[in-house]
Amino acid sequence: MTAAAEPVEDLYPTRAVRESVPFARRHPVVWGTEADGPLDAGELAAFDRDGFLSFEALLSAEEILGCLEETERLGRDPEMRASGRVAPEPDADGIRSVFEVHAFSEVFARVVGSARLADVARQLLGSEVYVHQSRVNLKSAFDGSKFGWHADFETWHSEDGMPAPRALSFSVALTDNQPVNGPLMVIPGSHRTFVPSVGETPADYHKLSLLGKALPAGPADRTVVTELALNNGIQQLTASAGSAVLFDCNCLHASAGNVSPFRRTNLFVVYNSVDNTLGPPFAAPAPRPGFLADRRFTPVPRR
Amino acid sequence: MTAAAEPVEDLYPTRAVRESVPFARRHPVVWGTEADGPLDAGELAAFDRDGFLSFEALLSAEEILGCLEETERLGRDPEMRASGRVAPEPDADGIRSVFEVHAFSEVFARVVGSARLADVARQLLGSEVYVHQSRVNLKSAFDGSKFGWHADFETWHSEDGMPAPRALSFSVALTDNQPVNGPLMVIPGSHRTFVPSVGETPADYHKLSLLGKALPAGPADRTVVTELALNNGIQQLTASAGSAVLFDCNCLHASAGNVSPFRRTNLFVVYNSVDNTLGPPFAAPAPRPGFLADRRFTPVPRR
Repeated sequence: MTAAAEPVEDLYPTRAVRESVPFARRHPVVWGTEADGPLDAGELAAFDRDGFLSFEALLSAEEILGCLEETERLGRDPEMRASGRVAPEPDADGIRSVFEVHAFSEVFARVVGSARLADVARQLLGSEVYVHQSRVNLKSAFDGSKFGWHADFETWHSEDGMPAPRALSFSVALTDNQPVNGPLMVIPGSHRTFVPSVGETPADYHKLSLLGKALPAGPADRTVVTELALNNGIQQLTASAGSAVLFDCNCLHASAGNVSPFRRTNLFVVYNSVDNTLGPPFAAPAPRPGFLADRRFTPVPRR
Repeated sequence: MTAAAEPVEDLYPTRAVRESVPFARRHPVVWGTEADGPLDAGELAAFDRDGFLSFEALLSAEEILGCLEETERLGRDPEMRASGRVAPEPDADGIRSVFEVHAFSEVFARVVGSARLADVARQLLGSEVYVHQSRVNLKSAFDGSKFGWHADFETWHSEDGMPAPRALSFSVALTDNQPVNGPLMVIPGSHRTFVPSVGETPADYHKLSLLGKALPAGPADRTVVTELALNNGIQQLTASAGSAVLFDCNCLHASAGNVSPFRRTNLFVVYNSVDNTLGPPFAAPAPRPGFLADRRFTPVPRR
């Protein structure tokens, strides 16, 4: 018999608030040191300051092709579809996202477990890490829909019970991310500010959210986004296939829809610290399914 | 009593076609010469080759502010709204376009009639010109909607009865057009190819179209767009407030939605040659209203 866990204090109140009053992040951005891993002091300082880093040629051509083929296969797979892991484009035919790809494909499992990604995550988070979420965002040619401004941590905290912003995401380009096909946009330095979202979380909110329905809960407050963008600017992060952007879980980001004839397909991998595992949601009636927020917390083995 | 006009031969069949088979443009791009106006031989050659030209600092700061104020006023004007000249954003609050602004505002009338724009139009079209259409596209911050791939001439020919591609459009930036707020994208050289659109034109189609509803009639065939974009590339045309892009009426263009906090407001002015006036629509049940396609053909006075 184990003792009941102490309730974790909510240091990032959101959703059940009357207005969005942003406040300074209450935890570090960089938890490790130069001695811990592949990033040098300059890279650590840049991530600390900006909230993101770019990596050239992280995947080989063979890995890129393998991931694209596996995305096709998993997107068509009847069990994946029936389980809710395949999210459709909100206003068109086609697929917007496929979730938990590393659990259903050896190709994705190898990328997600590779030292190229995981060692960076371990260094920045200063601990062992596990995969909180993986997915492929497909953003179809012509019809790919937008992602509005948000910081992932706001959702993971309120809906998944993630205590602190001690997680990060790799967005690995599987096709070229160009200025014309809806590349990632970030507000540099925004990861240092927590922006509460106004609006109660309805039951089963992730189902609406995956359908691309805009609701008050989740999106960052527009006045705050505007102010941060005017102060810090907006950086558009293009990347050739195989390159990647790594960003802090509290970094405000968005991307425009894709009207170009060139699809924009990215693998998105979220690593969380094993010292920051999930509890009950801080501001939602029930936890989200495991394919959106893994609750097994299995550390990625060191390779 | 005047003789009935000869029916004009349809040299650009579209809409009532079974598939989109693109063909070479049957008319010149540049109708005038260097001696006729402000553009030099290099600029004429560039427009002939690419189908577009950029102009820096075409409007003064005072003109920009005047246009923005007039846009606010006209967008709120009850008569403008009741007349259908104010088109809403399809999926959000706010205004997408305000039409025929030069007829309801001295500020816009002066810009549209200025030699800076009209002399260029007269030179390229090799004749006197009139204003076929004017409008402001507002593309709101956060919610501004996309414009899919199309060439304006396809619509003006089928729905307005414009015989030949002897018209052009100035898109004048009233706010900065940045990579992040849905700037104009063009396929250089696409103006040399006519891309038929498959699909009958329904009655009152412009009403649906102004609501941003995607229908088969009008948008350019996706296979053809993809092929042209792969061959010629896509150019994103950014412009600081007051600068402008001029493009041929048969140039394929599009723009992404605006998810940034910075609105993208452009004045759009279409000049048509007085030797290319409208007849009955080539592929629509009835002509569109005058605020979309002027049928008075009044030449812009030389200043």
